[in-house]
Formats: sequence, C-alpha cells, structure tokens
Amino acid sequence: MRVLGIDPGLTRCGFGVIDGDRSRRCTLVDVGVFRTPADLDTPRRLVLLEQEIEAKLREHRPDVVAVEQVFAQHNSPTVMGTAQAAGVAMLVGARHGLPVRLHTPSEVKAAVTGSGRADKQQVGTMVSRILGLAEMPRPADAADAVALAVCHLWRTGLEGTAAAAGAATAPNRWQQAIDAHRGDQHPNWKEAR
Amino acid sequence: MRVLGIDPGLTRCGFGVIDGDRSRRCTLVDVGVFRTPADLDTPRRLVLLEQEIEAKLREHRPDVVAVEQVFAQHNSPTVMGTAQAAGVAMLVGARHGLPVRLHTPSEVKAAVTGSGRADKQQVGTMVSRILGLAEMPRPADAADAVALAVCHLWRTGLEGTAAAAGAATAPNRWQQAIDAHRGDQHPNWKEAR
Repeated sequence: MRVLGIDPGLTRCGFGVIDGDRSRRCTLVDVGVFRTPADLDTPRRLVLLEQEIEAKLREHRPDVVAVEQVFAQHNSPTVMGTAQAAGVAMLVGARHGLPVRLHTPSEVKAAVTGSGRADKQQVGTMVSRILGLAEMPRPADAADAVALAVCHLWRTGLEGTAAAAGAATAPNRWQQAIDAHRGDQHPNWKEAR
Repeated sequence: MRVLGIDPGLTRCGFGVIDGDRSRRCTLVDVGVFRTPADLDTPRRLVLLEQEIEAKLREHRPDVVAVEQVFAQHNSPTVMGTAQAAGVAMLVGARHGLPVRLHTPSEVKAAVTGSGRADKQQVGTMVSRILGLAEMPRPADAADAVALAVCHLWRTGLEGTAAAAGAATAPNRWQQAIDAHRGDQHPNWKEAR
C-alpha cells in the first residue's frame, strides 16, 4: 500500500510518500514541502497548493491520502489558512477517487513515538529510524507528513487482522492518543511554526 | 460589474449573483443554496461543492467572487468544515483568474442594514428592498450570500478597474500557475465542463 501524507499549511505544506507491506515495514518514496509565496493572497496560494498536490498524486499514484486534522482553539488567520490547505488536500484526493483519512497530531505522535505528547525532535528521530534514513527529513513539516503516512499505514494496515482484533480489546495507544488529544485543549505546537 | 457572493457551508452553501452599475443600483441575477449530503465524508462534500460553484461560475461569468470570512472562536468540526468550504470557493474563483475578496459578517450586515449587529430577518428584509424583490430570498444562507455580494459591490464598486490593473502586476508565478492550469493539470475538472 502506498500512502501520501499531507501536513497542511500555506507557507510550508509537508508531504511524505511511503510504501508499506503487511509486516509493517515502511519504505520512503518521496518527502518534502510545498511552499507558496506569502505575498500572494490566500485564494491564489490555495491554487498553487492544489497544483503541487495534484502533480504529486499523478507522480506517485498513492492508494490513500492521509491528512493531518486541524484544530482551532481560537480564531487565527494562520489556523484558518491551515484548515483551508487541509481542505484542498482532501478535495484533490477525493477528486481522484481515493480514500482520504484524517489523523490528529496526537495520534501521529503516538504512532511513531509511543507518546501522544512527543516533541518534533522525537518524531523526526523516530521517522528516520522507522524508515532507515541517515538523516531526519527537514523541515519538520516534511518529517511530520512522513510520520502521518506511517501512522496511517500502521493503523489501517492492521484492520481486519487478528492483531487488530486484539488491539480493539486491549488498552491501545490509539485510544490513548485520542484521549490525550481531548485533554490537550491547546495544541499550540501547530501554530508555533 | 457582476458579483458572485458565497456564504460558505457544507450543509447549505448560499450563493447570490448580482449586477451593479456605477450608481450602485443592484439587480438580482441568481440566488440559492448548494447542499451536500451530511452522510458523505468531508472530502467528498468538498468535491460536490467545487462542482456546484464551478458550474455557477461558468453559467454567470462574474467579475469578482466575494466570500464570507470564517472565524473560529472555539474548536468545532462545523467551523472547520465551513472554513474548508470557504477555501474551495476561494480556490475555484482564483483558478478562474478572478479577484476573490473576503468580507466579515459584520461588514456585510453594516453594508445592507447600517448596523454590524443586525439579525438575519433585518438582513433579509433589506436585501429584498435593495433588490426590489417581492419576497426575501430563503433560506437565510441564500439571503446572506446576496447581502455579501451587495456589500462587496457597495464597498469596492469603484475599484473594478483597479483590481484588473493589480492582476496585471501580480507575481509571475501566479500567471504561470494559471497557464499551467489552462494546460492539462486538472482533467477531472475538465471532464466536468
């Protein structure tokens, strides 16, 4: 299964493409960031982003698109721009007939580090280890997008298997991650970029 | 000048098209709501909304798209969906090379009623008077979209030529993006034509 992960943003939108097999081994296919000029208005930045995502989809033909879920605790132009960037990623994926799945930041952190409150350094380090990379992807948005793709693969790769059934009846880190996020009412890490 | 106003939403997205002249007289061209099924996931609802707005743009060929600015005071899936619907409206307008302008709800209310705190009934009543309609557009989302278009026309009606001049000096990358689009970057979109 090939997953395109998108860590949405207008200034920097991380993307990561990975291949995964049933043994949960992951291979990095592509990683980077899309950037749109800050001196353009938001509508035009969304058009540029659409074209970048569209091109990446055509290049790699993923089976699924995973997008990081955006939360807004208070009104901020940055958060709304991020939400709209996420919307464009969702739109482009769905327009290709692909499943589009959202994962929360806590879910992603829990998937790759075991803790829903891990910092960016920890996430980057684990992404590098999981994928056998000599260096962690930079900037952090790129590493986050890869982490998101790994999260999606590991989470859904187990669906329908005995392991998933076991996970469903045991305290599992997915639920913990979701609970952690509910408690975490101020995910400022998203806006601190 | 012809204005397409969009009051964004996933369940009901209001639209209103009006023509205005230099004496600020307004004529209603079209009004209504786009609806997307609540049992579809957000990515697919965004695709449907994109198609509806795209079709309306092609039908009426507005000179400008006015979109109501979305604010989030607290985290809510509805607000994020609304922001993403607004993002799609902005995207589609910009993709056509049109100026896309945002107006706040208070601006819109103040424009048509004289008060930024007017209620929906008041807005609907004034929209009917301004456009000489026998009845106010329903539902409220439709009336709001028309009010938004009136607001845009009254506030910026004299800037029509300035906007065109500004577009000519926009960053080159933007023009390249538009040119790329005219190529073959969006086959799904082309099919919908």
